[in-house]
Amino acid sequence: MNESTTYKTQLFKFRERWIQHIHALQDTICSALEGVDGKARFKEDRWERTENGGGGKTRIIENGAIIEKGGVNTSVVYGNVSDAMRNQLKMEGSTWFACGLSLVVHPLNPYVPAVHANWRYFELYNESGERIDRWFGGGTDLTPNYLFKEDVVHFHTILKQYLDPFGKNFYPQFKKECDQYFSNHHRNQEMRGVGGIFYDFLRPSDEADAKRLFAFQESGGNAFLKAYLPIIEKRKDLSFGEDEIKWQEIRRGRYVEFNLIHDRGTLFGLKTNGRTESILMSLPPRARWIYNYQPVPGSREDELLQVCIHPKEWI
Amino acid sequence: MNESTTYKTQLFKFRERWIQHIHALQDTICSALEGVDGKARFKEDRWERTENGGGGKTRIIENGAIIEKGGVNTSVVYGNVSDAMRNQLKMEGSTWFACGLSLVVHPLNPYVPAVHANWRYFELYNESGERIDRWFGGGTDLTPNYLFKEDVVHFHTILKQYLDPFGKNFYPQFKKECDQYFSNHHRNQEMRGVGGIFYDFLRPSDEADAKRLFAFQESGGNAFLKAYLPIIEKRKDLSFGEDEIKWQEIRRGRYVEFNLIHDRGTLFGLKTNGRTESILMSLPPRARWIYNYQPVPGSREDELLQVCIHPKEWI
Repeated sequence: MNESTTYKTQLFKFRERWIQHIHALQDTICSALEGVDGKARFKEDRWERTENGGGGKTRIIENGAIIEKGGVNTSVVYGNVSDAMRNQLKMEGSTWFACGLSLVVHPLNPYVPAVHANWRYFELYNESGERIDRWFGGGTDLTPNYLFKEDVVHFHTILKQYLDPFGKNFYPQFKKECDQYFSNHHRNQEMRGVGGIFYDFLRPSDEADAKRLFAFQESGGNAFLKAYLPIIEKRKDLSFGEDEIKWQEIRRGRYVEFNLIHDRGTLFGLKTNGRTESILMSLPPRARWIYNYQPVPGSREDELLQVCIHPKEWI
Repeated sequence: MNESTTYKTQLFKFRERWIQHIHALQDTICSALEGVDGKARFKEDRWERTENGGGGKTRIIENGAIIEKGGVNTSVVYGNVSDAMRNQLKMEGSTWFACGLSLVVHPLNPYVPAVHANWRYFELYNESGERIDRWFGGGTDLTPNYLFKEDVVHFHTILKQYLDPFGKNFYPQFKKECDQYFSNHHRNQEMRGVGGIFYDFLRPSDEADAKRLFAFQESGGNAFLKAYLPIIEKRKDLSFGEDEIKWQEIRRGRYVEFNLIHDRGTLFGLKTNGRTESILMSLPPRARWIYNYQPVPGSREDELLQVCIHPKEWI
């Protein structure tokens, strides 16, 4: 093989390993969530992009015993850098590649928190097909309707435990970025939930560092299940009524507001002709808007709202 | 009075007459809607802007016999042209004034269509306080969940009848702008409803023209009630069940998507620290998202969807 072929083979192999990881992770997470739910199964829709190349596997679960609506989606997409990407994402280069997994779970029981997680890898190339940039991104955040401090501490502790070996600054930094990101700026920075971690543009300094960050992303997938599933188990049998449903739907309204007004991934997907139904699977099954609704000060609803307005250090 | 004082008095009087008209119209429309509902009453919240000047009167009606949630809001606001206005609205000038009425009605019965209407007036000034630009804008659109052709024809006919005396080109032009504006571009241009009229930047050529356009805006307020109230009366007693509610909530999901992703007024308000609860009163009381929901071809739900996807000429 000549030098150029070797280079392209290397590029190819790294991407392929990441794609395999993402698809294996999709299987693992879907199996685990089906196991917890016990009733509903994921249904898969495969789709292809009409412009440029690639596609995805959208897996949706609905009307389960535990999960009212959830999606675990993967996509492998590539194409030319468009004007929209140049202007909105400030991207340079000629072509790009992206592959990631994105998941959302909206449980039926208002005492079980919703969750979101995402892991992604991105490459940019010049006109000769040489890679000129690459980065990892991801994160996970928890959106309860009622506050059980021990659950939030558990969630954040598992995240910190998997992050620490990769960098002592990771947890505090990514926790802060998460608090800033998942915030409804139009509601005085009120967060949609109790946060977690969020990171983007983790650029490997060399090939060894790329392997290290790959392993970091792999750990994130495993940690997610350890962080979330025990919370489902703990809260899934709590009984609830109309009052809890009403508050759940009001909080889900905030979730809709965040995703449609602020979430960069959602807006970029929608404005660049992504597959709408795969992007908007993140929206809750039901939502409610009551004019100027304020929970009674000191109530359980208000307790949750206060930690959304004033993000806390949980560990 | 010297010349400058006379000029400023003229400016003041025109704005004052418009403000009076908007507040009188708010009273008229609220009374008419309360009369039709027969059960719920509007509640008013007065608010003031924390930055720059002005404020508004937000009037909300909830849990009525006919109206599940509605708002009829007025605002009189003014201030310095901000960077956001310069960049996002391409506005020049030093200071501005705006006054308008914006209303939304979300009826309880899925057979009664939702409606939106808005009338507004805007002025821009240079550093000496001289007016350098002014325009009227407005419109109204109907959002049914089920198609009764005679209702849509009635709505559009009333609009055309009031527009024709002011310009034969008005109805076809504003009808087309409405079809283009109230469209979910991320869902293949699917409209949120069956349209109506939408117009902006109607600039008077001189004072006589300004009076003519003022009268045109006044006619719009009267026409709105003639266009909408008879449709409520005709459909409010139709019986409905869970299936109709489900479809209503799915269509309301589309309404949420339009308002939060595409509506210029909503986004501009939220991103420039407007009063969030007054802006988001337009959101429906309940909404639903089901992954990739498709009504049965040929069903009544599909019949409505088809005219949203393929806007028609109704007259």
